[in-house]
Amino acid sequence: MIINVGIIGATGHTGEVLIELLLGHPNVKITRLYNSGKSGQGACVISDVFPKFKKRLDLVCIKPDWAQIKKDCDLVFLALPHTISMKFAPKLLSLGKRVVDLSADYRIKNPTIYEEFYKISHQDKANLKEAIYGLPELNRAKIKTAKLLANPGCYPTSAILGLAPLLAVNLVDTDSIIIDAKSGVSGAGKKLEKEYLFSEIQGDFRAYKVNVHQHSPEINQTLSKLAGKKISVVFVPHLLPIERGILATIYLKKAPGAKLKVGSVVELYKKFYKNEPFIRIKPDGIFPRIKDVVKTNFCDIGVKDFGKTIIVICAIDNLLKGASAQAVQNMNIMYKLPETAGLL
Amino acid sequence: MIINVGIIGATGHTGEVLIELLLGHPNVKITRLYNSGKSGQGACVISDVFPKFKKRLDLVCIKPDWAQIKKDCDLVFLALPHTISMKFAPKLLSLGKRVVDLSADYRIKNPTIYEEFYKISHQDKANLKEAIYGLPELNRAKIKTAKLLANPGCYPTSAILGLAPLLAVNLVDTDSIIIDAKSGVSGAGKKLEKEYLFSEIQGDFRAYKVNVHQHSPEINQTLSKLAGKKISVVFVPHLLPIERGILATIYLKKAPGAKLKVGSVVELYKKFYKNEPFIRIKPDGIFPRIKDVVKTNFCDIGVKDFGKTIIVICAIDNLLKGASAQAVQNMNIMYKLPETAGLL
Amino acid sequence: MIINVGIIGATGHTGEVLIELLLGHPNVKITRLYNSGKSGQGACVISDVFPKFKKRLDLVCIKPDWAQIKKDCDLVFLALPHTISMKFAPKLLSLGKRVVDLSADYRIKNPTIYEEFYKISHQDKANLKEAIYGLPELNRAKIKTAKLLANPGCYPTSAILGLAPLLAVNLVDTDSIIIDAKSGVSGAGKKLEKEYLFSEIQGDFRAYKVNVHQHSPEINQTLSKLAGKKISVVFVPHLLPIERGILATIYLKKAPGAKLKVGSVVELYKKFYKNEPFIRIKPDGIFPRIKDVVKTNFCDIGVKDFGKTIIVICAIDNLLKGASAQAVQNMNIMYKLPETAGLL
Amino acid sequence: MIINVGIIGATGHTGEVLIELLLGHPNVKITRLYNSGKSGQGACVISDVFPKFKKRLDLVCIKPDWAQIKKDCDLVFLALPHTISMKFAPKLLSLGKRVVDLSADYRIKNPTIYEEFYKISHQDKANLKEAIYGLPELNRAKIKTAKLLANPGCYPTSAILGLAPLLAVNLVDTDSIIIDAKSGVSGAGKKLEKEYLFSEIQGDFRAYKVNVHQHSPEINQTLSKLAGKKISVVFVPHLLPIERGILATIYLKKAPGAKLKVGSVVELYKKFYKNEPFIRIKPDGIFPRIKDVVKTNFCDIGVKDFGKTIIVICAIDNLLKGASAQAVQNMNIMYKLPETAGLL
Repeated sequence: MIINVGIIGATGHTGEVLIELLLGHPNVKITRLYNSGKSGQGACVISDVFPKFKKRLDLVCIKPDWAQIKKDCDLVFLALPHTISMKFAPKLLSLGKRVVDLSADYRIKNPTIYEEFYKISHQDKANLKEAIYGLPELNRAKIKTAKLLANPGCYPTSAILGLAPLLAVNLVDTDSIIIDAKSGVSGAGKKLEKEYLFSEIQGDFRAYKVNVHQHSPEINQTLSKLAGKKISVVFVPHLLPIERGILATIYLKKAPGAKLKVGSVVELYKKFYKNEPFIRIKPDGIFPRIKDVVKTNFCDIGVKDFGKTIIVICAIDNLLKGASAQAVQNMNIMYKLPETAGLL
Repeated sequence: MIINVGIIGATGHTGEVLIELLLGHPNVKITRLYNSGKSGQGACVISDVFPKFKKRLDLVCIKPDWAQIKKDCDLVFLALPHTISMKFAPKLLSLGKRVVDLSADYRIKNPTIYEEFYKISHQDKANLKEAIYGLPELNRAKIKTAKLLANPGCYPTSAILGLAPLLAVNLVDTDSIIIDAKSGVSGAGKKLEKEYLFSEIQGDFRAYKVNVHQHSPEINQTLSKLAGKKISVVFVPHLLPIERGILATIYLKKAPGAKLKVGSVVELYKKFYKNEPFIRIKPDGIFPRIKDVVKTNFCDIGVKDFGKTIIVICAIDNLLKGASAQAVQNMNIMYKLPETAGLL
Repeated sequence: MIINVGIIGATGHTGEVLIELLLGHPNVKITRLYNSGKSGQGACVISDVFPKFKKRLDLVCIKPDWAQIKKDCDLVFLALPHTISMKFAPKLLSLGKRVVDLSADYRIKNPTIYEEFYKISHQDKANLKEAIYGLPELNRAKIKTAKLLANPGCYPTSAILGLAPLLAVNLVDTDSIIIDAKSGVSGAGKKLEKEYLFSEIQGDFRAYKVNVHQHSPEINQTLSKLAGKKISVVFVPHLLPIERGILATIYLKKAPGAKLKVGSVVELYKKFYKNEPFIRIKPDGIFPRIKDVVKTNFCDIGVKDFGKTIIVICAIDNLLKGASAQAVQNMNIMYKLPETAGLL
Repeated sequence: MIINVGIIGATGHTGEVLIELLLGHPNVKITRLYNSGKSGQGACVISDVFPKFKKRLDLVCIKPDWAQIKKDCDLVFLALPHTISMKFAPKLLSLGKRVVDLSADYRIKNPTIYEEFYKISHQDKANLKEAIYGLPELNRAKIKTAKLLANPGCYPTSAILGLAPLLAVNLVDTDSIIIDAKSGVSGAGKKLEKEYLFSEIQGDFRAYKVNVHQHSPEINQTLSKLAGKKISVVFVPHLLPIERGILATIYLKKAPGAKLKVGSVVELYKKFYKNEPFIRIKPDGIFPRIKDVVKTNFCDIGVKDFGKTIIVICAIDNLLKGASAQAVQNMNIMYKLPETAGLL
């Protein structure tokens, strides 16, 4: 089976990584590449933008062309900045295309909260309701038939996968969750801002958007659903002087009187994720590192019970399990391909 | 005034940094350099070990020589690994020398806890009792007359300076303190272990000694004294792919019913540290970064009140405010020099 | 078609990279992994050595076992240190196995020169004569039927590919060649030596083995053959604070009276390499960078004619085109697979 | 003695480094800071621009104010981009101030060549003639009385200091000089361009301005003067993924029939530089590294005779010996201070 794939936003960082992955996917043909349609953007050959694609993919990248898409694409990936995807998704859906959106536009169900964090009112509330949140480990059944898939954010992927097994068994004092997350610079895409210059990042480390990051509501929405009650985490992201990878260190108190039904939290995690091809649980007392997951779709998790406190550490590649590879994993599920196709 | 200074452990990483600082100090003459006295170590010229000192300091470094020390040194810095310092300090004190110990040997007052964390029973309990903990911002009066000064650890310096103002006014739920600390690699000295190879560190990030680090008891001892009750923090150190710097992100809940007497936590911190030459408090909503403190003796602190939770972020250079420069600051106090001499 | 592959030296750095590549190769099954047979090495699970292989390859790695190899392997890769491969190759050949040796043991045809640079007399002169030098762009015909393939060194690959088109048309003053090469740290494998610590490499840059590197004779041997006369280059390698990649800046004078028969040196290079899937020639005035070739088998080349002097700049991934991926490319040729199989 | 110093261009990268140095200089008072006077630049507190100067220097930085300068400054440093300095220098000189210009505006004596490389015709030819080239090791006598000092470029400093001893004794085939130089990113200042983003630099290495860099004429001018004949070097700069430091690898052929009068080239260099406080010659067979000179004003040189070819390797900190610290060294000479004041 071959899926004909188009990418809108192919010249951005997420687009670049997505192309890299899809070039190695046995069931995908990249048929069309488009830019974001912003005025002033001309046509370009993708391998001129990214010379590393020379001799591998020399497609032209143009403004989105609906007639072409209609004819040449089964599925369209939106590798666009937040607030832009929702301009394209409705049209693509009306053409009968399946859509995987890598932006935040269809992740947050409550448009008021979306507006609060993304500073723009939602333009496509109808489809927002129908969009499926694409975290395979929690939502696989619905992903299979998704028309519009909202691919999760990088921080939320690490935080939610790290907490789900404990929340599922009501083991957590839900007022106590602290997520101290550290991300490589690629999380910011390739924004041309002074703070992302080599001379600013190299040798430095700092927190940013302390407890006000736009991924907080996405984390809270999913955790609340899992717990069956409103959760509001403390979430502090930090900027690492590396290109790729997130490590999230998660602290929580046990709920008063909570009891484990298996021997240890490590066993709990192993059981919860036992059929998952991309989740690896570390042995007791061992915690993950970023190096082991970089350039992979794996999420490595270490967890330890310290009595009153439990500490969970999660590592993912923010551009892969936290973005483009998870999008491919979702595509695999949507098309009933082996879930690991093109990803191992 | 000129202080004649000797360094034991001059060929180690802390020694190297200490030499660098003392070469620029207007009131110091480095008279003698010694290695740690381990069998097999021969005499060497310090600028052969560290070629960057060529044309600056070409002293010979030999095994400790008590007669020489007696004659040529007023003060001796011990830049030695833990468990070695306590072999040298008693002799130096008996010669009437003042001693600044950069190891952990005289920091922890309870020898049982020392033994638990450093895996050796304490060899010098007499002097342990008399040793002064050298955190100038909290202990300046005693430092002035110290004979044996225990220079604080790097993580404890950042954690304690970050928490002291809140503990001093009983604002903290003392069961809630979480310290998520991140340190550059130089914290590990220059140990020849696989995990410190460039290929292991570059592009990586990981936690280590999760909640079992040997700096925990030092942090707990000092915070407990400040709070007037037993405190046991959650402390997770991480390894950054940079050479220098610590950033500690500290989370705590307010004590029930606690009330600030000044307008904001930022004001509280500014007041608490108002005469301190090396503490800089960030404006509300701004947090420190490692770059601003690297190669300095400053401790930059940002703090914000989020209602139930307060977040404090502290940045220091682990080799300077966290080790050698703090040792020089202590020396300045001990000799009634301007506290910033050689440090600004 | 499936090739059953064994790897001897699987726990080293080259072995690790080779496994990574072969896991993604559609025509390869890794059947057996062996360590180097050094006494003291026990059996281990490869994913315990490299946790990143968990859930991907959990084979046991043991001492070389000839009966097993005879039964289970078509081809054996030797991912061993120099001087060790020549102990294993004869036995493997006698079992009728094809061998790809990634060490230097079968590259240098003159055993006297081998001994001079590798400080050991050659142990297998019989097979040395028959070994095929595996640089596909120059030697494809012979590689097809190779029994014992000597996979080229990383620096030689970049230097020879950079110079071949000019030498082939006698354009070079052969006394004038200077190769100023810069390599990432992985070129040194994962040696546990002080000079490869993060604290030594990060922020540093230096030359090493200035004009005495063991890759010089390999470069000279191949260039001399191409030119039809003895060539002795000036070769200075340097150590970059990055993990992967070589950039070689090559300077040469034109031979007196030499004339180009095509319009420009860029055209010459394009023509020379026109059917090569892994060589990319930059447009005139553009030079390659390491980023574009990292994690690929490509060799990017920029060349410019400055009148008397020609400057050529070549970039490869030292672990891929400079080692493991070139070995896979050679395997593909040996088994008449598409040359790019598993590599694009 | 206290020199009252003003800096024009204080908010740039060179300005920042200069301030850092001058704060530690025992004979300097920074009295005034100015921006480059570009329209749109408002007044600012320097420690708001560079938070690391908080509690150290809180001067306001405004547009250049001639009345203020007249009153408050003995010497003015111009830490300005090329082509801007020449707008300020004439006025400062007319006010009787001594000027140290860190830009390229007064380095190249031939205005035609200046225009060719800097794309603007020279605006101040009168003072250009009088400006003194501030390389202390070659030009100390003239520096003492300089009114307008042209501080050398970073690449030229490393290249010229590396070649001077050989050129002074006519040992060099002057047509053969190749300078393969590698610089940290700070050489580009803090330009906000895509190519200087962390994600572009980290893990990369590349050449740029291959044999067309604007420092070529500065190198050629000085070397030609030393040799007494026209020299035109091959010069290829490269960009290192580090912040600070230049390492220049220099290749040259000996002049036919040239004879050394001392035992070795190493001895020649030691003799040539024997009274220089900031030049360190490595023993035979040892070459310098960037780490040893970073954050210092030293130039470390290794040189080796390979028969027909001599290889010289020079290391400096591009921001210090290659810019701001050399400017301070020049100031020390101009004011008859110890040449190392504030620099060791």
